[in-house]
Amino acid sequence: MSEQAAFLFDLDGTLIDSVYQHVLAWKEALDGEGIELSIWRIHRRIGMSGGLLINILLRDTGLALDPERIERIGRRHSAAYLRRIGEIRPLPGARELLAALTDAGIPWAIATSGRMETAAPTLGMLAIPAGVPIVTRDEVRHAKPDPDLFVTAAERLGVDVRSATVVGDSVWDMLAAQRARALGIGLLSGGYGTEELERAGAYRVFDDPEGMLAQLEELGGRR
Amino acid sequence: MSEQAAFLFDLDGTLIDSVYQHVLAWKEALDGEGIELSIWRIHRRIGMSGGLLINILLRDTGLALDPERIERIGRRHSAAYLRRIGEIRPLPGARELLAALTDAGIPWAIATSGRMETAAPTLGMLAIPAGVPIVTRDEVRHAKPDPDLFVTAAERLGVDVRSATVVGDSVWDMLAAQRARALGIGLLSGGYGTEELERAGAYRVFDDPEGMLAQLEELGGRR
Repeated sequence: MSEQAAFLFDLDGTLIDSVYQHVLAWKEALDGEGIELSIWRIHRRIGMSGGLLINILLRDTGLALDPERIERIGRRHSAAYLRRIGEIRPLPGARELLAALTDAGIPWAIATSGRMETAAPTLGMLAIPAGVPIVTRDEVRHAKPDPDLFVTAAERLGVDVRSATVVGDSVWDMLAAQRARALGIGLLSGGYGTEELERAGAYRVFDDPEGMLAQLEELGGRR
Repeated sequence: MSEQAAFLFDLDGTLIDSVYQHVLAWKEALDGEGIELSIWRIHRRIGMSGGLLINILLRDTGLALDPERIERIGRRHSAAYLRRIGEIRPLPGARELLAALTDAGIPWAIATSGRMETAAPTLGMLAIPAGVPIVTRDEVRHAKPDPDLFVTAAERLGVDVRSATVVGDSVWDMLAAQRARALGIGLLSGGYGTEELERAGAYRVFDDPEGMLAQLEELGGRR
């Protein structure tokens, strides 16, 4: 017998069109510390834990992992991102997809590697009903690509993560889904290519939430 | 007998770390006209002719192709990009790669879908020797993915484009290379994935100019 579907959504690049602002906010934060790094390398790390992102970028550039510097870069990123928040909008179909799941009684949750400080303003754009679990980086020991965020989101929904489907735009979402033994659906709306998401484990790839909504019945989302 | 190698370089995302600023400058230009479009869709069109980019984006959003509006969006993009020029730097290894080719007497040129107005400030960062051909969108009838820019660059070098190698970061560079019967080398520094570039015809893919320089001898670049 097939189990009830449940969807665990990433936030940035999956429901909200905010990846490019995050990328340039990290660039600004790193420039502010005198750390020169190509922008595409930052883009390819977006979606993972901010602490891990800074660790890896510092290691790649041969710089010391000074905890104070990591903390300072994180604060600079948040400030630079929040300064850009006025430009940011939900992705096409994001609100409609979430509303369709709610209407059909299909459980869903949001799990983001971001902190509540940067996530709250964009969560407010999604008209999320009361009772939907929202798990941020503040609440787990390790963010993506560790599975903790998605495991916690499934627990809050009262579903087995191994019967849930993770929806995300980044390789880190797909890897975390695999580590949680969940299925992964990739969306192109964060700027990764189809093959990158498939190689990281996506069993289906759509353009954006609108594209996924059009195929919802194929994905266990019976309405 | 193997022919003398010649390299035809794209500019933005290939030699200069400017793709993400171009993306957000187009986003700002389109927002200014009330045209809402996901940012990743703009990213995936960067590198093609600006006029073609606007045409396709307008058609995708079902809006009319009003020549005045196209002209106005182009002007807004240039202004928004030039406002960001202070953040922009050459990519790692760009100056060293070009200097190595010059030192070895290997002919090279630059061919960009951008206009001289937006290209000039970043060309100035590359220390280009006198006599190197630089072909901009102003000088050809059709920009990429049409082959005109690379064909013209090869003509100015006095080489057969069919024995030249195009170096670019976007699918449009690789498609234009195929249409010119040149070889294509893809660089990841514009934010496309390896498989996207390979599927568009890249016979080799490197991270950035630094990665290409390290393998120059494999690419016909005997020093």
